[in-house]
Amino acid sequence: MLLPVSTWPDIEAWLKKSRTIVIPIGSMEQHGPNGFIGTDAICPEVIAHQAERLAPDEMLVGPTFAVGCAQHHLGFPGTITLRPSTMIAAMADWTESLMRHGFERIYWLNGHGGNVATIDAAFAEIHAHRSFDPRGADNRPGLSLKRRNWWDFVSVMNLCNQLYPTGHGSHATASEVSVTYHAYPDRARPEVQMSPKIAPTGTISDAVSYRRDFPDGRIGSDPTQSNADDGARIVAVAAEAVLEEVRRFAA
Amino acid sequence: MLLPVSTWPDIEAWLKKSRTIVIPIGSMEQHGPNGFIGTDAICPEVIAHQAERLAPDEMLVGPTFAVGCAQHHLGFPGTITLRPSTMIAAMADWTESLMRHGFERIYWLNGHGGNVATIDAAFAEIHAHRSFDPRGADNRPGLSLKRRNWWDFVSVMNLCNQLYPTGHGSHATASEVSVTYHAYPDRARPEVQMSPKIAPTGTISDAVSYRRDFPDGRIGSDPTQSNADDGARIVAVAAEAVLEEVRRFAA
Amino acid sequence: MLLPVSTWPDIEAWLKKSRTIVIPIGSMEQHGPNGFIGTDAICPEVIAHQAERLAPDEMLVGPTFAVGCAQHHLGFPGTITLRPSTMIAAMADWTESLMRHGFERIYWLNGHGGNVATIDAAFAEIHAHRSFDPRGADNRPGLSLKRRNWWDFVSVMNLCNQLYPTGHGSHATASEVSVTYHAYPDRARPEVQMSPKIAPTGTISDAVSYRRDFPDGRIGSDPTQSNADDGARIVAVAAEAVLEEVRRFAA
Amino acid sequence: MLLPVSTWPDIEAWLKKSRTIVIPIGSMEQHGPNGFIGTDAICPEVIAHQAERLAPDEMLVGPTFAVGCAQHHLGFPGTITLRPSTMIAAMADWTESLMRHGFERIYWLNGHGGNVATIDAAFAEIHAHRSFDPRGADNRPGLSLKRRNWWDFVSVMNLCNQLYPTGHGSHATASEVSVTYHAYPDRARPEVQMSPKIAPTGTISDAVSYRRDFPDGRIGSDPTQSNADDGARIVAVAAEAVLEEVRRFAA
Amino acid sequence: MLLPVSTWPDIEAWLKKSRTIVIPIGSMEQHGPNGFIGTDAICPEVIAHQAERLAPDEMLVGPTFAVGCAQHHLGFPGTITLRPSTMIAAMADWTESLMRHGFERIYWLNGHGGNVATIDAAFAEIHAHRSFDPRGADNRPGLSLKRRNWWDFVSVMNLCNQLYPTGHGSHATASEVSVTYHAYPDRARPEVQMSPKIAPTGTISDAVSYRRDFPDGRIGSDPTQSNADDGARIVAVAAEAVLEEVRRFAA
Amino acid sequence: MLLPVSTWPDIEAWLKKSRTIVIPIGSMEQHGPNGFIGTDAICPEVIAHQAERLAPDEMLVGPTFAVGCAQHHLGFPGTITLRPSTMIAAMADWTESLMRHGFERIYWLNGHGGNVATIDAAFAEIHAHRSFDPRGADNRPGLSLKRRNWWDFVSVMNLCNQLYPTGHGSHATASEVSVTYHAYPDRARPEVQMSPKIAPTGTISDAVSYRRDFPDGRIGSDPTQSNADDGARIVAVAAEAVLEEVRRFAA
Repeated sequence: MLLPVSTWPDIEAWLKKSRTIVIPIGSMEQHGPNGFIGTDAICPEVIAHQAERLAPDEMLVGPTFAVGCAQHHLGFPGTITLRPSTMIAAMADWTESLMRHGFERIYWLNGHGGNVATIDAAFAEIHAHRSFDPRGADNRPGLSLKRRNWWDFVSVMNLCNQLYPTGHGSHATASEVSVTYHAYPDRARPEVQMSPKIAPTGTISDAVSYRRDFPDGRIGSDPTQSNADDGARIVAVAAEAVLEEVRRFAA
Repeated sequence: MLLPVSTWPDIEAWLKKSRTIVIPIGSMEQHGPNGFIGTDAICPEVIAHQAERLAPDEMLVGPTFAVGCAQHHLGFPGTITLRPSTMIAAMADWTESLMRHGFERIYWLNGHGGNVATIDAAFAEIHAHRSFDPRGADNRPGLSLKRRNWWDFVSVMNLCNQLYPTGHGSHATASEVSVTYHAYPDRARPEVQMSPKIAPTGTISDAVSYRRDFPDGRIGSDPTQSNADDGARIVAVAAEAVLEEVRRFAA
Repeated sequence: MLLPVSTWPDIEAWLKKSRTIVIPIGSMEQHGPNGFIGTDAICPEVIAHQAERLAPDEMLVGPTFAVGCAQHHLGFPGTITLRPSTMIAAMADWTESLMRHGFERIYWLNGHGGNVATIDAAFAEIHAHRSFDPRGADNRPGLSLKRRNWWDFVSVMNLCNQLYPTGHGSHATASEVSVTYHAYPDRARPEVQMSPKIAPTGTISDAVSYRRDFPDGRIGSDPTQSNADDGARIVAVAAEAVLEEVRRFAA
Repeated sequence: MLLPVSTWPDIEAWLKKSRTIVIPIGSMEQHGPNGFIGTDAICPEVIAHQAERLAPDEMLVGPTFAVGCAQHHLGFPGTITLRPSTMIAAMADWTESLMRHGFERIYWLNGHGGNVATIDAAFAEIHAHRSFDPRGADNRPGLSLKRRNWWDFVSVMNLCNQLYPTGHGSHATASEVSVTYHAYPDRARPEVQMSPKIAPTGTISDAVSYRRDFPDGRIGSDPTQSNADDGARIVAVAAEAVLEEVRRFAA
Repeated sequence: MLLPVSTWPDIEAWLKKSRTIVIPIGSMEQHGPNGFIGTDAICPEVIAHQAERLAPDEMLVGPTFAVGCAQHHLGFPGTITLRPSTMIAAMADWTESLMRHGFERIYWLNGHGGNVATIDAAFAEIHAHRSFDPRGADNRPGLSLKRRNWWDFVSVMNLCNQLYPTGHGSHATASEVSVTYHAYPDRARPEVQMSPKIAPTGTISDAVSYRRDFPDGRIGSDPTQSNADDGARIVAVAAEAVLEEVRRFAA
Repeated sequence: MLLPVSTWPDIEAWLKKSRTIVIPIGSMEQHGPNGFIGTDAICPEVIAHQAERLAPDEMLVGPTFAVGCAQHHLGFPGTITLRPSTMIAAMADWTESLMRHGFERIYWLNGHGGNVATIDAAFAEIHAHRSFDPRGADNRPGLSLKRRNWWDFVSVMNLCNQLYPTGHGSHATASEVSVTYHAYPDRARPEVQMSPKIAPTGTISDAVSYRRDFPDGRIGSDPTQSNADDGARIVAVAAEAVLEEVRRFAA
């Protein structure tokens, strides 16, 4: 079930059998010369929606949290970021809203490495709010919060390595661009050339040093290899992994 | 141009000719027995995207701000709300990010009456932040922030009144449900019955009184009249109105 | 009863018969060449105090919330504004304090159009805080928050239209200046001339554009018509309307 | 000049000769069986306004900051408090607004001992905001913030000791009640009896212990001695002291 | 017992007999030509630890809150300050954490005059948070928060006056420098000369005026008199006073 | 140089040759039956101070940020945590203070895995604050923020693996307890027995589940192996690694 295109009686019925919901969470940031700015939001959304299609009775997918922490990409036009403190507040509000309805297990399917720190900090903030409540956390129904980066599943990593033995990279990766081309084939940019073919690697700091060190936005990748067919394969593998993990998480 | 499926060089090119961007802004809240929880996010998104199709060189549409202020709907499962203070912070971060790239005119196409107060408060917060800067607002490039509720265009109102002379209503309206059925025809719920046929009207306060006064979530509407064809007509009229207004706003 | 000049045993006694309080809420901002900076705080205060005189046993009036949201007037010396986020926090603190004593119905008599958005956002923030409480809003005594702009009563509008068939305007209006001249007759400025006699109209944005578009601060008004006698009549009509509405609100 | 009943051209003219403004700052809290809840806001307001009458060309008095920090009085109905963090934010907003117009010296005439900590913390917050600005505080016009408790002037203390050799007290004092009776003679409560005649003394902590230790709200005082004539004398002496100090502060 | 070098079973055992903890709280700020930047954190820490040595079964000392409010010293390199709002939040978090374990009495041994306002504001913030809880503060175990400046004990003042009849001063005092030399004898700076021998006195405002008025950082002091032996005597007297007061506070 | 026991002229001199400072950052949380609550603050402090002794002219060590993010340990008495949002604010204040003096490179030597997310989020918050400044980050001196977990150096990991081939663990590790025993040999607890000898492993969530899953606080470790001699060796290796990295970072 997809929450945004469901009705409230649908969710009421869902809550009679499950306390679990999946939230795709991404970012709105540059992804190199041929990658979409929305890549990190599109990937977890597409994968979660595909997992839902595999087992609509076992997966409830909420709206996509589409703008995350991307300060380091602000040197490239189009990037939009939340401050981490804003993102923590927003994630807390989503969680509080869901808890009010009875949800107790929230699985955040993450599409952006730069979100990891703030997502984990948000979890600690939410739990601390409960711990500081004078009645004590022990007396209330539990709350489980889990983050999963979609690219961290072993099956996904194996496929990506197989598809892109060189130039997979760590930002604007060949795999994530493929996933978005699968999702929006009409928007693919096969004509874009890049130089060097494989982007440099290095460490990330703030927006100014990022643009200086990675002038076209890519890190270590050659996304000219990306294509919709690869994307379809990656989505299929990732969706199965997500479904399997959500089943365990919900149990 | 749609920002989430564009590249950063695309946006860099856009900024050479325009300082304007359109942001659909909605809510994630119950919309009665046959309306989608995402209705208020879907409507402005669909309309903005249609306007972009009419004139891709004149419209840049950003990501949809999909979760807004919906405290009063929290009595119905599936509703997700931001606190107004969180929404103000998030809108400020989006605006600051866009300003850094050179955007100076942001047009928020709103899909939710309950967002109006907080959007306008956010505008005042953003402007106050600039006013309080010791260098003074006068010395910097201007910033124009505009909110438009998509249903407020005269042409849209006329069409809705013509399509639904009775039972258009003020929440879970016949027109907004039609727009979402046009966007997601496979998700339409023609089988859902409602009683009374036209929902009661009244004033909105908090979540508890809302659920008491409007037990199935609708206010004054009969959305069993809704259908995808009507939705297509409404979207067409609204998209033209948006395009025309954005042209004037950008000038 | 007026809370600031009452004792705590007075309020203790009041709470045995009523859970309602009226809070005048205004702004501290320019009101054109002959209007007081405190106009928007003075008007609701004077009207509420007059209503209290009509029925001291039925009206408890709290302190005036005198500084509101006036960023757009910062281009004129003397204007003081809160950021909307600060105003939300302050209104929440007032409300929490009053709730602790047992108040459950707070009627905010508003004197400033620019406050409307933030007052309504504050209501949503306060209700959201209650909704997010894990015990749930349903288990606690209700809280009713109501905003009323004093100029929106039909009887008041009719009188203003009759007194000022032209040049009533929308900022620094003839009627509000009259109310303040009634309250502070020694401070009236009958000698001030204005040109043009009726100020231009237009839309409001931030402080910089406001001063550019409305160079003496007025919008659409000719407050040289204002006088204390008119003010007395307006106050009388508005006070009756407030009293009647508060009686219904408290019931 | 009193800002709330002045026009913006008045303030524009003032700023050509002075950068100084006086802000009365008080509290809304219980003041024993015969003291007004607004006592701490009324006292500095009355004194500042009297000082202004003595030398209207040398004193600009802004609106009264009427609700302060009074958590410890919340055990008594009618008390309204800001959280200190809210009060800091509001004082910062007032200061930023005034600085935008060119004010550089703000004299806060305080009426409440419980405000002292938060006022001083607000000063540090405001200064820190300037220090953290990357351009450095040194490059900008100075900002002087001063707090004065009206009862701390030697001339005022001497008069109070002379008027009330016993039972002056430290909360709901004989002197402050007299000042308010002078301001609102019709509201005086000569009929109220108290037992014990002189209230107990002790240390203040939170609301719960305060009500337990000081059951009628007074600390160490016998305000049955209070009367309007005494109040007039106190106001006269305090107003002269304020005027003299403001002259030095503005120099 | 010293919490940072104790185990959790130690604290669990402590809580079976006591609900009290002592927190040294200081600042990280310039202390003149021969004083350490950490002086205000070192002094209360050394004194509290000495008190603990006198009666380890009666004193539990927590970690030192080492960075406080020192905006006014930012003109001197090495000074680190929290904004007051941050310090309030941090003190609230420490308090909430301790309350969760069952602590009900927190004694803050303060080493910095510039912390006084913010510590007291933090107490009000913490108590207000409890007062605003809808269940009401009365229904929960009490919370006592106490601040003590170590130099305010009569026995300490007497000793300091005896040791330094002239040039004790009010910042970078002879006594506090002696205490730190006692704590870190190898770091003492007997070779540093100062001119004038006794620093000027005056009032403190922000960082810019402080550096202008007190060019080497001292106020009214001659800390060339400071030495480790004096420090040992001061610590001994202060530790006894703290121990005695904590015994009463815990009772 | 150690900032807390240096004078401001010392720091002024330092800044003439370097823009770099090292900040040990830890936590105050349970560390099993024989580990100190302050372990995570003590370890980076001891290591940084040892590195400073190796090359006092090349290392400036600031005060230890001793209380971090430890919500998940709140089930054990003595643990103190900041909410992540508070920790972000505090780290920002430290950074802003240091930047005002001219520091441009801050090296945070971290002692707590649970701090990683919030430290990295704080970096993004600080950088975003600069990015959002209307003058643009490019026009100002750079700011480099680096986090290093002391246990992540290869040389340290190798030594730990050699010392504790089994039972090193991931919380209350054998190595960190040894470091603290080296620092505070008199506080060591060789007598404490544990059962099971090697604690269970698993995933961490909130405080309630942590205490349920790891009943004595340890994860995967056998710290009965810990001793001061091992600690001395670990500190020596870690200090060299820190010194070498700080030299590169400062270059």
